[in-house]
Amino acid sequence: MSLPDYGRAFALWRTAAGADWDRYVGHDFVCQLAAGTLPRASFLHYLQQDYVFLLHFARAWALVFAKSDRLSEMRAASLIAHGLLHDEMPLHVSLCAREGISEEMLQATPESPANMAYTRYVHATGYAGDLLDLLAALAPCVLGYGEIGRRHAASVGPYGDWTATYGGADYQRLCVEVGALTDAALEARLGPDWPRLPRAVALARHFSQATQLEAGFWQMGLDRA
Amino acid sequence: MSLPDYGRAFALWRTAAGADWDRYVGHDFVCQLAAGTLPRASFLHYLQQDYVFLLHFARAWALVFAKSDRLSEMRAASLIAHGLLHDEMPLHVSLCAREGISEEMLQATPESPANMAYTRYVHATGYAGDLLDLLAALAPCVLGYGEIGRRHAASVGPYGDWTATYGGADYQRLCVEVGALTDAALEARLGPDWPRLPRAVALARHFSQATQLEAGFWQMGLDRA
Amino acid sequence: MSLPDYGRAFALWRTAAGADWDRYVGHDFVCQLAAGTLPRASFLHYLQQDYVFLLHFARAWALVFAKSDRLSEMRAASLIAHGLLHDEMPLHVSLCAREGISEEMLQATPESPANMAYTRYVHATGYAGDLLDLLAALAPCVLGYGEIGRRHAASVGPYGDWTATYGGADYQRLCVEVGALTDAALEARLGPDWPRLPRAVALARHFSQATQLEAGFWQMGLDRA
Amino acid sequence: MSLPDYGRAFALWRTAAGADWDRYVGHDFVCQLAAGTLPRASFLHYLQQDYVFLLHFARAWALVFAKSDRLSEMRAASLIAHGLLHDEMPLHVSLCAREGISEEMLQATPESPANMAYTRYVHATGYAGDLLDLLAALAPCVLGYGEIGRRHAASVGPYGDWTATYGGADYQRLCVEVGALTDAALEARLGPDWPRLPRAVALARHFSQATQLEAGFWQMGLDRA
Repeated sequence: MSLPDYGRAFALWRTAAGADWDRYVGHDFVCQLAAGTLPRASFLHYLQQDYVFLLHFARAWALVFAKSDRLSEMRAASLIAHGLLHDEMPLHVSLCAREGISEEMLQATPESPANMAYTRYVHATGYAGDLLDLLAALAPCVLGYGEIGRRHAASVGPYGDWTATYGGADYQRLCVEVGALTDAALEARLGPDWPRLPRAVALARHFSQATQLEAGFWQMGLDRA
Repeated sequence: MSLPDYGRAFALWRTAAGADWDRYVGHDFVCQLAAGTLPRASFLHYLQQDYVFLLHFARAWALVFAKSDRLSEMRAASLIAHGLLHDEMPLHVSLCAREGISEEMLQATPESPANMAYTRYVHATGYAGDLLDLLAALAPCVLGYGEIGRRHAASVGPYGDWTATYGGADYQRLCVEVGALTDAALEARLGPDWPRLPRAVALARHFSQATQLEAGFWQMGLDRA
Repeated sequence: MSLPDYGRAFALWRTAAGADWDRYVGHDFVCQLAAGTLPRASFLHYLQQDYVFLLHFARAWALVFAKSDRLSEMRAASLIAHGLLHDEMPLHVSLCAREGISEEMLQATPESPANMAYTRYVHATGYAGDLLDLLAALAPCVLGYGEIGRRHAASVGPYGDWTATYGGADYQRLCVEVGALTDAALEARLGPDWPRLPRAVALARHFSQATQLEAGFWQMGLDRA
Repeated sequence: MSLPDYGRAFALWRTAAGADWDRYVGHDFVCQLAAGTLPRASFLHYLQQDYVFLLHFARAWALVFAKSDRLSEMRAASLIAHGLLHDEMPLHVSLCAREGISEEMLQATPESPANMAYTRYVHATGYAGDLLDLLAALAPCVLGYGEIGRRHAASVGPYGDWTATYGGADYQRLCVEVGALTDAALEARLGPDWPRLPRAVALARHFSQATQLEAGFWQMGLDRA
């Protein structure tokens, strides 16, 4: 299957992440999810942790908004952060309810170390750096889910809804938009030749490191089984 | 006229700010605006600066979102930040257009020192401190406009739209909500007796200092006349 | 052996962390280190990662300085951050050199996920919160090493220097000072009854979560063996 | 008199700030200080405010340390922040004591709006952006004092000590070092052609805006007379 086209920065960072990227998007958790063989306990554990994750992820996008100085970026970040909170979270809550996980249980979820590891990396990188550092740390999550969804969009079985969501047109469009937002933010600050600047190395490292931590998030799901 | 009831923290902080608060809500710029005697040049200068202000103000509310760890606060902050960007800003742009100030002119506005002073104080206080520090620094703007609007809601004349907006039911409701959000955030972290904690002094100081800088924002309008 | 006396906050947080604390200070890595049975490869891996750790740790103490608004705290934080950079790091570099790890190797160390997890948690918690949040997240590292050192101060064998350092008078004095700094910072902001405030729960959670991530740092050493 | 040589970034930013720079380094407060005609009340007011300023300035340099990811930058920033706290502040306290201003009075100084304006601009710019944004906002203070001191180093009269300090070899060396640190930080991230990148515009704007706010600090001194 062809690679997803989420823009220039993604293509570069994905290549630079190399085997780390493959370990993340091709993680056993993902393969078993797509094949429908993932133990239910793993999926439910993942869903519960994902609730906590979404809160921290929304906060990270709010930080993108706070750290932007261009109106177009502020608007895009606000749409994403607002949508996560007012659309995604309620959807996630009702999905969990269907699985027998109440909102009270979600709110009482003890955050797993692997969950903390990725989200706090994003926050720390974003606070310590600027908007570009933050976007590079966010990219593996947004776009990795897109690549995984796209690859397994035709999966059926018990987790078919999950792959259909991330492989679906809405989520793929979001990936294209986030990729374009990232490319535009880079060019607007560093010019069209930004990949040749020393700073490109640091940005690619944020992407790779966040990718490693995202793989840890999948592993957490498997370990629970 | 009775004092506005925007909650407990506001009442305490307002009292603690004393003469600084009166100098802000009773500033000559405000009196002349209400009386309709404010020079047009002052009002237009204020409108232009207010465009830049709104951008930084929206970013500050996005930071409230990013720094919250309670879902209700995240939702409220997202509604405000999102509303500022997607509703208030377009309204402001069309209001300015009617006054002959194009969006291009707005975007090219050189930010005045008094404008920087208040917004960066809010950002700096919010980044260096926690959610409560940020809310204390934001309160003078949100709630001061509410008190001014309420006091001058019946004003007619060239600036009657302005006073009607801030004295109107929608804005007054926002003030009550922001006051309640602030009170709830304080109690949820510091308990019901928070005004007796040493930290209350620092919070009141943020409010007073931000109040002084807000008065400087009005003065900037007058100085331009 | 009696518990170390590093102040009131530490005693409370340590108790609240419960089994997580025991898993951290009593981790197999630590036991094997004290017993002298830890594989050399594990120790060397730990040393290399610790170099990267120290950089992020020093930055965290610099953030304590930046986020303080009391001169005594600023001074204490500056002494620690400055000392880490100008005393600890050179010591660590020469210790590594004796083990055959050059400064170039140290600087090229790929940061392990467990290493990122703890340090970014501290940074993220500190940036998103205030000084107290940051101190609560820093405490498990500073004071946990103190407790471990104290417990194993009499250890001999290949890693006797390590336990002697952290069990020695200098490091124990630092622990007492950091405990006192933390207690004073809490009281100066939240008053003497701070443990009864709702906020105490959040602070204890930072401590517990950071403790879990610190245990992951030891595990990383073992996994490498 | 030739321009001071504090490096490439300073030369570019100084030129871009144009008349704003001249209004700052050639402010009446400075001219009267150099001529010895500045009213004593103005100087004393300045000295008191400068105490509060130094605290915030030291915190800003601690933030440089926290936001650096290169050891050389961390070391340089730590030296400056540490030196401000442990050398400059005590010197300032004893200078004030000779003028009849006790340490208690210094600690009770109500911070003036112009004082807040500059320091919070630096903090806000630094927290919202990255290390380079922060350095650009800090430069007008460090290097502006250097240029002023250099220009008036031969001044005698009641304020001769002040001009001698900033015009002296120690402070001039510091300016050269800070200029070199800034140049190196820019090159290490953005490459040797950084002035051609779009980001250079934003950095120059930070410098110009901070310069305007620094001029307001001098004006505060005059206004008090």
